[in-house]
Amino acid sequence: MPYDLLIRNCGQILTLVGGPTDKPLTKSQLSDWQILANGFVACEKGRIAAVGPMLELDDSQISATTEILDAQGRVVMPGLVECHTHLVFAGNRAEEFQRKLQGESYLDILASGGGILSTVRATRAASAAELLQNALHHLDGFRRYGVTTVEAKSGYGLDKETELRLVRVALEASKRQPVRVVPTFLGAHVVPPEYKGRPAEYLHMLATEVLPELRGQAEFVDIFCEEGAFSVDDARTYLQQAHALGFGLKIHAEQLHDLGGCAMAAELGAISVDHVDYLSLPDAARIAQNGRTVAVLLPLVPLFLRQERYALGRQLIDAGVPVAVSTDFNPGSCPSKNLWLALSMACLKMGLTPLEAIAAVTLNAAWALNRAHEVGRLAEGYMADILILTLDDYRQIPYWLGENPVQEVIIGGIRQNLQ
Amino acid sequence: MPYDLLIRNCGQILTLVGGPTDKPLTKSQLSDWQILANGFVACEKGRIAAVGPMLELDDSQISATTEILDAQGRVVMPGLVECHTHLVFAGNRAEEFQRKLQGESYLDILASGGGILSTVRATRAASAAELLQNALHHLDGFRRYGVTTVEAKSGYGLDKETELRLVRVALEASKRQPVRVVPTFLGAHVVPPEYKGRPAEYLHMLATEVLPELRGQAEFVDIFCEEGAFSVDDARTYLQQAHALGFGLKIHAEQLHDLGGCAMAAELGAISVDHVDYLSLPDAARIAQNGRTVAVLLPLVPLFLRQERYALGRQLIDAGVPVAVSTDFNPGSCPSKNLWLALSMACLKMGLTPLEAIAAVTLNAAWALNRAHEVGRLAEGYMADILILTLDDYRQIPYWLGENPVQEVIIGGIRQNLQ
Ligand SMILES: [Zn+2]
Ligand SMILES: [Zn+2]
Repeated sequence: MPYDLLIRNCGQILTLVGGPTDKPLTKSQLSDWQILANGFVACEKGRIAAVGPMLELDDSQISATTEILDAQGRVVMPGLVECHTHLVFAGNRAEEFQRKLQGESYLDILASGGGILSTVRATRAASAAELLQNALHHLDGFRRYGVTTVEAKSGYGLDKETELRLVRVALEASKRQPVRVVPTFLGAHVVPPEYKGRPAEYLHMLATEVLPELRGQAEFVDIFCEEGAFSVDDARTYLQQAHALGFGLKIHAEQLHDLGGCAMAAELGAISVDHVDYLSLPDAARIAQNGRTVAVLLPLVPLFLRQERYALGRQLIDAGVPVAVSTDFNPGSCPSKNLWLALSMACLKMGLTPLEAIAAVTLNAAWALNRAHEVGRLAEGYMADILILTLDDYRQIPYWLGENPVQEVIIGGIRQNLQ
Repeated sequence: MPYDLLIRNCGQILTLVGGPTDKPLTKSQLSDWQILANGFVACEKGRIAAVGPMLELDDSQISATTEILDAQGRVVMPGLVECHTHLVFAGNRAEEFQRKLQGESYLDILASGGGILSTVRATRAASAAELLQNALHHLDGFRRYGVTTVEAKSGYGLDKETELRLVRVALEASKRQPVRVVPTFLGAHVVPPEYKGRPAEYLHMLATEVLPELRGQAEFVDIFCEEGAFSVDDARTYLQQAHALGFGLKIHAEQLHDLGGCAMAAELGAISVDHVDYLSLPDAARIAQNGRTVAVLLPLVPLFLRQERYALGRQLIDAGVPVAVSTDFNPGSCPSKNLWLALSMACLKMGLTPLEAIAAVTLNAAWALNRAHEVGRLAEGYMADILILTLDDYRQIPYWLGENPVQEVIIGGIRQNLQ
């Protein structure tokens, strides 16, 4: 079979090959993967057929039907994996952002109907068609940044009907465009007004009435464990129920306080613990023990919220915790789809090196979505999700701060139109 | 005469019209300019012919030759003015950035030949053709971010021949592509190795041998006043000489220490004082007195250098200082052409509101380049440098953090190809 697509003259191929294949990269593995100089990447039927040095390119696999791209010495890497977004919502909170900048307090804004519940109101009021249109708009934005897999959490419905609608919209969005969408159920985002003061009852309703209907639709169940949201004990009970129903587990925890949610979730086998800005190093050591729970660093959130504290990325890596980096795209605390900016900020504010940060937005992010067998690497058999950058050296990736280095995006072997 | 280009159905036209026309915007003027709802912008012969509400659009000015763009309710605004860049240089310092992230100290990097002098070596060794190619590459990047006027400093030559070459390259780049380029002479960037320990002699050489040859080529003369670069006294003497030769004056000062360079330059009538991260409020009051010297805020520099201190933007505005915002694009302390990110960071880290920040990257930035009579506003007679954004409300401009909101860029009435 001839190649369908051949990318030749790649200056550096960031393969992400070289570490373990059965668990996420930790410690020195995060920078120990292979960069192939002067190579090619060949694709067949949507998957990678071969990766190697130009000298080993087998010309007999090239036919008149092979589409050939010349990378002209530039960097070629896996499509980015965005492992934590709140993709599906209505409206935005730009007006609230202006009010904050003008000095209004969060409490004033809450008192006047702002904050997360304003997004919940807008989302409940929106039709599935409107929500789908928004999700497609944002997926198109992600695609232009070279993001080829996106996790999509529900969580702005907070009632059975709307939450189910949000998961269905994510699944529908997945079919309507090329970016791969992985739905996560975050009905347990905050306590809805209807259950004010009764968080355990709300979680019980979700576990008994909503989760059973989501099997085969949402792969992961997530919860926001924080003061003002859900306690560690309530979160444990809920995640255990979700686990019993066969869902993978995720948690938002240690964003603003150190409550111990991350270590609790890791002990239940969570695939990821997200935020971790206030995670203590003893808890990091507990998380590192299982070798599989990925800590998802979200550096744009403290930046956008003007918090001082960022997750101790460097120390987490040194403690053996596998880390990923994501935007946390959402209308309240991080309205950004620029995962390259998050990557740079992980270097600047969390002490990651360029190689570690690249692994954190590709292979380890794929681990945080249980997709590391098919995305996040350039290796034979993996999905042909590939970027050609405008850069000729990987060290420039975090360096050109906030710029989009994407020249070509290929998803499943198909060149994307980025106009 | 019929219109050459008509942009109709603009949801919000950010005109920047409404304040004084003879000096930069200060205090409440920074947010008091006119936003026109549901309007049109018409262009003729590269300039703006009319701006008004759709109801007042004169159909008799539309002919078969009029190109019509439908803004579909989106935000339309002046092209961005980028008033502080080090556009012309060779190479980049991505490797050095990686070494810093891995923990090497600035002194270690200097000792091994890194830092600004590595860019000087690369720039001296580069041909004019290479330098031009680099400058054109970066101008193309700026254009994609909707930047339609760019200041371009020399300063990586540090000898007569190379510095003159850098100014010529900027002028040549101006002719080769549509973005307007304003050259500034920054021969006084640091003391070159050849003049080690003799800063005043170097400045004397520049003032007597180089500046006279630059009349009619560079419009402004700039100097870096800082510990390790040039003292306030040396800078004063040099700027006075430049002034006598007819150049406009700029200064890099109070970036890392409060030496008093900004107030000194303002008293000499400098058109801008740049960085101002360590500017004291008493000195801010002195600068405010002349009403014309613009303080150029460069929020991406402390971010990229991991400094704690940012310019006190809010207090500067309240003290009556006119402010602009820029990237400071350069290979060492800010490799970013994303002026939208700088705008967001000016809001988040320096306390500007969205309206103030928008004025700071348009009209006030034009004031910092003595171009406010022709760019930075959407008003009759101004250059037809216009952006159509993907957004429908100006408050979203700083909100979608790090994203590029540009849908269409028009320079001198010509629609730009952004592919
Ligand atoms: Zn989140
Ligand atoms: Zn500068």
